[in-house]
Parts: sequence; structure tokens; C-alpha cells
Amino acid sequence: MQDDIEQELKYRAARFDDYLEELMAQWEMHARLKESISHTLLAGGKRIRPILTMLICDMLEGNLGAARTYGAALEFIHTYSLIHDDLPAMDDDEMRRGKKCNHLIFGEGMAVLAGDALQSMAFEMIGEIDLPAETRMELVDLLAGAAGPGGMVGGQVMDLEAEDRKVDLEELKRIHAAKTGQLFRAAILGGVLCSEHSREEWKILDDFSRNLGLTFQIVDDILDVVGDEEKLGKEVGQDEAREKSTYPSLLGLEESRRRAEEAASRAREALGHFGDRARTLIELVDFIERRQH
Amino acid sequence: MQDDIEQELKYRAARFDDYLEELMAQWEMHARLKESISHTLLAGGKRIRPILTMLICDMLEGNLGAARTYGAALEFIHTYSLIHDDLPAMDDDEMRRGKKCNHLIFGEGMAVLAGDALQSMAFEMIGEIDLPAETRMELVDLLAGAAGPGGMVGGQVMDLEAEDRKVDLEELKRIHAAKTGQLFRAAILGGVLCSEHSREEWKILDDFSRNLGLTFQIVDDILDVVGDEEKLGKEVGQDEAREKSTYPSLLGLEESRRRAEEAASRAREALGHFGDRARTLIELVDFIERRQH
Repeated sequence: MQDDIEQELKYRAARFDDYLEELMAQWEMHARLKESISHTLLAGGKRIRPILTMLICDMLEGNLGAARTYGAALEFIHTYSLIHDDLPAMDDDEMRRGKKCNHLIFGEGMAVLAGDALQSMAFEMIGEIDLPAETRMELVDLLAGAAGPGGMVGGQVMDLEAEDRKVDLEELKRIHAAKTGQLFRAAILGGVLCSEHSREEWKILDDFSRNLGLTFQIVDDILDVVGDEEKLGKEVGQDEAREKSTYPSLLGLEESRRRAEEAASRAREALGHFGDRARTLIELVDFIERRQH
Repeated sequence: MQDDIEQELKYRAARFDDYLEELMAQWEMHARLKESISHTLLAGGKRIRPILTMLICDMLEGNLGAARTYGAALEFIHTYSLIHDDLPAMDDDEMRRGKKCNHLIFGEGMAVLAGDALQSMAFEMIGEIDLPAETRMELVDLLAGAAGPGGMVGGQVMDLEAEDRKVDLEELKRIHAAKTGQLFRAAILGGVLCSEHSREEWKILDDFSRNLGLTFQIVDDILDVVGDEEKLGKEVGQDEAREKSTYPSLLGLEESRRRAEEAASRAREALGHFGDRARTLIELVDFIERRQH
């Protein structure tokens, strides 16, 4: 079953890659900027956020075309954060998605601008969504809030400020919730907004998003300790080299694994509400819990 | 009269500064991020873009509260572009709005994140505007398009790629139209969207925005040659030091002045349609044409 879902996710990621490639082919912009954006955007990646949006939308029998377009906006935001995060002034990384980092190929100036462009493009994409303006505006609010100072960027600032000092578990949780959790939330609730839904379903899936984001992040921390560089497409041991506080460094590997398991269980429980319709999503939770990359 | 409009603009900028200060005071975010953003955002500046939005909206008897909120979004985008533009990998500047550049005080990593946060905040602001979702969504489309690869960022890429080589007048015009012109357009047409308007008024004011943006940029280039550093709040002679092509370097000062005059005349002509209601806007055109900073 783990194999099945892995195949399913690969297939979905490949189809989404095709869609992103089409989008970029049609998007008129400066040739070098397009190259720089495409270098990181079209370098594969798990596409876990847009796939989540689409699976949620599928489960709720919503507008899948809308979910896909919104998924591109999510992936633009996620990719911009990777490009900026890899800059020398930030994490100073060399490899990303199995390729040299953007700034190492296109220069730092272009990497800054490619990230900036991707953030604008995310909001341009929402304008393209085939849903009433009221709903599109809710998607803008959701995504801008998740990306901004109360979300992803806020988490990156906390992360930057926590460099070279130990943080405790509470602070680590806050950093993760902002840096990673908010964009997972925007993925999942974006799928909800693309569908008819009750207030109860919104609440359940908001709760689901919290636990799935937590699972993802703990596993990410674990993989930086025990992962395989080739599968990950980036260097491992980076957190330790930077003396960064992580789940394994604060709790040890075993307790970290236990917490990932616990969060994954809660995520699966939340999905219980949807019965058999949540089958693929439950397999996705299993996959995120046990992933090797 | 030039003095009157200067006073009027100063008064309006000061009131808008108060509004931005209030916004920042209420915005919950990481303390250091808030400091970094505030350093550049609240360092004064002419606030020409939000003032334009409000003057247009005033002329069309639109929703002034909405125009002010949208004006904050514009100023967020403009400020993010200044912070990123000053980075060592881009223009490598030292002074901005009369103060040390953001990255020199807060570090490059934080300057990148402050700019990133401001861009998200711009779209968060649009969610706050007291207008129907349909109109807010039009404002999102307008602003994202003006900021993204087809607008401001696209212009900055062209600018970056044109470093260390001569560009001709046609290319310079394209760079300016994208880098500066599009955000002027978003300011002016944003004011139109906050008001009841006819298609004809939209077209006239779109035309007005093109000529006003051009006037502004030619004068900007001229001021980099003949301006007063203290009044400008930044170093002059930077373009020449970088061997950057500008209006004065391509056409000489006299011809540049003539072209600024011509563009300003066209901008004033477009306003003729609105008769006496355009009085302040016409004075603003005069001011932009003759400004010393």
C-alpha cells in the first residue's frame, strides 16, 4: 500500500509538473528571469502542497480546476521561499531539488528577483481561478496570511534570529508552525474553499492541517539526520553543522519518531469524519510519516 | 502655486505617514521584523503613489477610505522594492530616504525577509478594503500584475541585465515603463477602481498614468545628475558612477528636460477631460515636473 501511494503521488506530481511547465511556457516575461524561475520551479519536488489541495478538493467533490490553479499559486510561494532561503545571507545552501541552487547559477541579484517575481505570480494566479470573486478573495486572504509576517516569513525570521543559540521545544514548535505549518494550512483550507463545505468540515480540516504539518516537519528534521542525500536532493547533516535546534537534537531520534507517529495518528483521526472518501488522504498521511525523502 | 502644492503634498504625506504608523503599531509580528520593516517604511518618502490614488479617487468622488487602504498596499510594494534594490547583490546602496539602508542595519538576511513580508502584507491589505469582493479582486489583479514579471520586477531584471553595457533609448523606455511606470499605473487605476467610473475615464487615466510615470522617471534621472543629496536623501551621481544609461546620458540634460516637459504636458492634457475637478492633480503634475527631490 505504501508503494501504491508512492506511485500515485509520483504520478500526480508528474502531471502537476506538466501543468507548471505549460504555465511557464505561456507566461510572457524576460527570458533570463524565466530561466531562473524555471530552474527551481521546474526541478521536480514532491508538489505535496498542491497535491494536498487537490486531494482535499476531490474528497469534498469541489472544483478541481480551481484547486489546481490555486495549487500553482502555492507552489510559486513555496518555491520563492526556497530560492530566498538558499541565499548566502540566509542558509547559504548549494543544492536544492537535486540541482545547484538558483543564486549559484543566475547570481544573487537574479535569485532575489526570481523569488520576488514568484510571489507576485502567486497572486496573479488567483485572479485566474474559475470561482466567484468572493471565494477568490478568500483564497487571497488565506494565502497572503500564510505567506506573510504571521506565517511563513515570520517563521523564517524566527529561524534566522534563533541561529547560534539553543531554542527550547516550545519555541521550535512556534517556528515550525509559522514556517511550514501555515503554508500546509493554506494548501488544505484552499482545497476546502474550492469546494462546498460546512463550518464543521472547515474546523476538522484546519485541525488536520495542524497535525499533518507537524508530522511533515518532525520527519523533515529526522531526515536531515538519517536521510539519504541522493533521495533528498539536498545535503544532510546541515542542521547539526549549523547547531540548529531540531526535534532530534532536542528530543533524540526515538522520541522524535514517537511524536511524528502521534501527530500522524491525530491527522488520520480527523479524517475519520469523511469515511471512505478520505482513503487516499489517509495513505498520504502514512506516506508523509514514513517518507525517505 | 508651486509652494501651495508642495505644502499640500507634505501635509498629505504626513497624514499618510500617521496612517502607516498606526497600521504597523497594530500589526502583530516578530519584533525585529517589525523594526526592520518600519526602518524603511516609516522613514518618510514622498508617498507619491498613495497620494495619487487618493487624489484620483477624490476627483471621481469615490470611496476615499478604500483608496487609503489600497495606498498602503502600494507603499508596501514600493518599499519592498527599495529594500531589495539596495542589497549588495543589486544596487549596493548605502542611503535611502535619508537613513542607512535596511541591510546595513538589520543584515542582508533580514532585509530580504522584510521585503518578502511587505509584499505579502500588500495583498493582506487588499483583503481589508471596504469594497465588494469583485472590486477587491480587480485591485489584486492590478497590483500583482504591476508588481510581477510583467511590471516592476520585470523592469528590475532588465535593469540588472543591462548593467555594464549601453542600452538605447527604446530599451531604456521599456525598462522605465516596467520598473516605474507599472506601479504608477496601479496607483492611478487603483484610485479609479475605488470610484464609479466610465470606460472612457479609465482609458483617459490609463493614458495619464503613462505620461506621469514617464515625467517622474526622466526627472529622477535628471536629479541623479544635478540633484541635492540632502534634499534627495540618497547619494547623487550613482547612475554615472555605474555607467548606467539614463535620459541625460543618452540625450543630454537639455533634451531630457524637454522630454519631461512634453510628457508632463500630455499628462495635463489628459486631465482636461475632468475640468476644474482635476485642479490639484494638475498642480501635482507641475510639481513632479519641477521637483528638486
